[in-house]
Amino acid sequence: MSLRADCEFITGRAIAAVLPDAAVKRALDGRRFEGGKLLLVSVGKAAWAMAHAAKQVLKDRIDGGIVITKYGHSRGEIEGVRVFEAGHPVPDENSFSATDEALKLTSGLKACDHVLLLISGGGSALFEAPKISPDELMNLTGQLLSCGADIVEMNTIRKRVSKVKGGRFALHCAPARVYSIVLSDIIGDPLDMIASGPAYPDSSTCEDAQRIVQKYGLKLTHDMKPLLMEETPKILDNVETVITGSVRELCEAAASACRERGYEPVILTDSLSCEAREAGAFLAAMARYYGTAAHSTALIAGGETVVHLLGSGKGGRNQELALAAAEGIRDCENTAVFSVGSDGTDGPTDAAGGYVDNTTFDRLKDQGIVLFETLKNNDAYNALKAVEGLIITGPTGTNVNDVSIVLINRAE
Amino acid sequence: MSLRADCEFITGRAIAAVLPDAAVKRALDGRRFEGGKLLLVSVGKAAWAMAHAAKQVLKDRIDGGIVITKYGHSRGEIEGVRVFEAGHPVPDENSFSATDEALKLTSGLKACDHVLLLISGGGSALFEAPKISPDELMNLTGQLLSCGADIVEMNTIRKRVSKVKGGRFALHCAPARVYSIVLSDIIGDPLDMIASGPAYPDSSTCEDAQRIVQKYGLKLTHDMKPLLMEETPKILDNVETVITGSVRELCEAAASACRERGYEPVILTDSLSCEAREAGAFLAAMARYYGTAAHSTALIAGGETVVHLLGSGKGGRNQELALAAAEGIRDCENTAVFSVGSDGTDGPTDAAGGYVDNTTFDRLKDQGIVLFETLKNNDAYNALKAVEGLIITGPTGTNVNDVSIVLINRAE
Repeated sequence: MSLRADCEFITGRAIAAVLPDAAVKRALDGRRFEGGKLLLVSVGKAAWAMAHAAKQVLKDRIDGGIVITKYGHSRGEIEGVRVFEAGHPVPDENSFSATDEALKLTSGLKACDHVLLLISGGGSALFEAPKISPDELMNLTGQLLSCGADIVEMNTIRKRVSKVKGGRFALHCAPARVYSIVLSDIIGDPLDMIASGPAYPDSSTCEDAQRIVQKYGLKLTHDMKPLLMEETPKILDNVETVITGSVRELCEAAASACRERGYEPVILTDSLSCEAREAGAFLAAMARYYGTAAHSTALIAGGETVVHLLGSGKGGRNQELALAAAEGIRDCENTAVFSVGSDGTDGPTDAAGGYVDNTTFDRLKDQGIVLFETLKNNDAYNALKAVEGLIITGPTGTNVNDVSIVLINRAE
Repeated sequence: MSLRADCEFITGRAIAAVLPDAAVKRALDGRRFEGGKLLLVSVGKAAWAMAHAAKQVLKDRIDGGIVITKYGHSRGEIEGVRVFEAGHPVPDENSFSATDEALKLTSGLKACDHVLLLISGGGSALFEAPKISPDELMNLTGQLLSCGADIVEMNTIRKRVSKVKGGRFALHCAPARVYSIVLSDIIGDPLDMIASGPAYPDSSTCEDAQRIVQKYGLKLTHDMKPLLMEETPKILDNVETVITGSVRELCEAAASACRERGYEPVILTDSLSCEAREAGAFLAAMARYYGTAAHSTALIAGGETVVHLLGSGKGGRNQELALAAAEGIRDCENTAVFSVGSDGTDGPTDAAGGYVDNTTFDRLKDQGIVLFETLKNNDAYNALKAVEGLIITGPTGTNVNDVSIVLINRAE
């Protein structure tokens, strides 16, 4: 029971640390915007919560602002800030018109002015002002999707037909200073990928774009051709970027919560990306080894695993990872493995993740549940449910990947 | 080049530490056999090398001995020791007759006498004296195989129809002392499984055996029925067991070699058992995190991964593990991942394992080799060969699983 209580405590602490609210406040802590105007532009699925937190910290220092978030994601008015909802994952007219408003708000700024840019996942669709017509953009996107271009190739092209992507929004704000706070939901925090990098120097070149056009035989309209020759900014000296609420912070908050509960924490990685069940087996193998130590240990792996859906059961990658560890730790005294998605939603289920300990395998067996069959059928949810192994948090309002933890308790 | 040289050095040191010769000598170090006779019984695929090493240490103290190894595995005469070759993996007449000789040699011993029992993989087939006829044994084994009994169930039955398995050889030697040196090739060192535990108390019971007979509807001959009611020894107070040359020693020797080359070693596990390519991805994810530290690090995982053969290419689990890590470490400066089988033979290839570093992915690409396709076709051998990524040691004469290592060099 103590292991399970530790799991709840650690999960709660880790997720709390990466909520948009806490993350934005941390990034603004001690930050001063001296002189000039301060304008706020917040884009992405967490845009409302981020803007709300910024407003709480900066209050009347904010001279105006715009929030662009996904339909249904606004939670009310924010004083002095206009809140827009728009299309995601496919941008729509509201994406374009709201982005135009943001461009107007930040036009004609001086060197003493500031733009506080808050970026979260989904920004690529929500924050977009194409240099071509919406129809041309849709046609181009369709060509890129059907020819099998990868995400880097797609962005190389799309950045060139946009007024804001690939660092162009920051260029538009110049000479004003842009302070960009990024809530990262992409492993490895590739700043030119998150929301297509509106305030980050673009590493792709016009030559890259030409190669992609030739490689896939893309059909360009008359208006597009010269756009592909216009270079994106390679250096932006008016921008400062802070990543917050990343999976690394999720891991670090988990580590600090583990330490508080008496476990020596070891962060293994913050970019886990292998198959969920194999990650579970790997962590179980580590549990068997670290279990021979005299002290309590917590092994922490952040990232985002994958599941190859072959069965018809119910589950998610975190539940599958945890369940897959159950057999491997059955002989490990006082040992648990759990895994949670920071968004509180693991796969198409109401659970955030799964929890198993060294008793789980036998308890499943007692109920006639064959672990191997359950995994084969991707049915971790129902198996875990039968042994009180589901972790339920409800939607958390953030999304910075998952954290998987092994707890080995040697306290008594 | 330095990373590759470190790989060769560490691989060499790790394997040398678990060669039967070194392992037996370490286990006999400082060991004295006072008074009485000292008889040697060495069984398994490494039986000859183990006996040869023991003879070098104990010389004329050995009063007689028997080696039972696989056909083609004897490397000549050992003075004062009779060397037999027999069938493996299926026991044959030579297994039975050689085992009978061992039983004769160790009959009628006194409390002051000693039996030095050297055990290596393959002992289950090579060291066998059935209490039933060879035909009955073959029939029973056939039934167990075809009904889908697992290895624990098979051994529970087979131990009861054997004169040596399940601790019975030690019982036969009593009251003489048995000093058993086990060269482990099974993860987790389950002493009642290795060579079917001739000198280890048996944990299975006659009730277990009855349940298995009923579960699978096994057909028993008249002679077998009473045998299944004869209990195997549960306590053996004349036996002392030492495990040597295990995968743990392989990892520890690798760790010490890593330290010698300036890497801070971290042993992650000695019982890795997940899919090879996913283990490679997991290790790459750890490399990305540990690479942010200022000092050089070595991450060490021992065990035995598995490969699901879907393609028609050439490779082995160690080669596949290493190759699967190549993409994940491409942006990690001065970083290598390699994996080797301690027997020097990885899959049906002449390589012991594979080596990749942060340059490998791009070098493969330059040669038109698509990593994803190569892995899909299980063709790690040819891809690694193209980039000098094969580790070749030749057969080593031992088999204590594999070791996989991440090297992160921060020396300059």
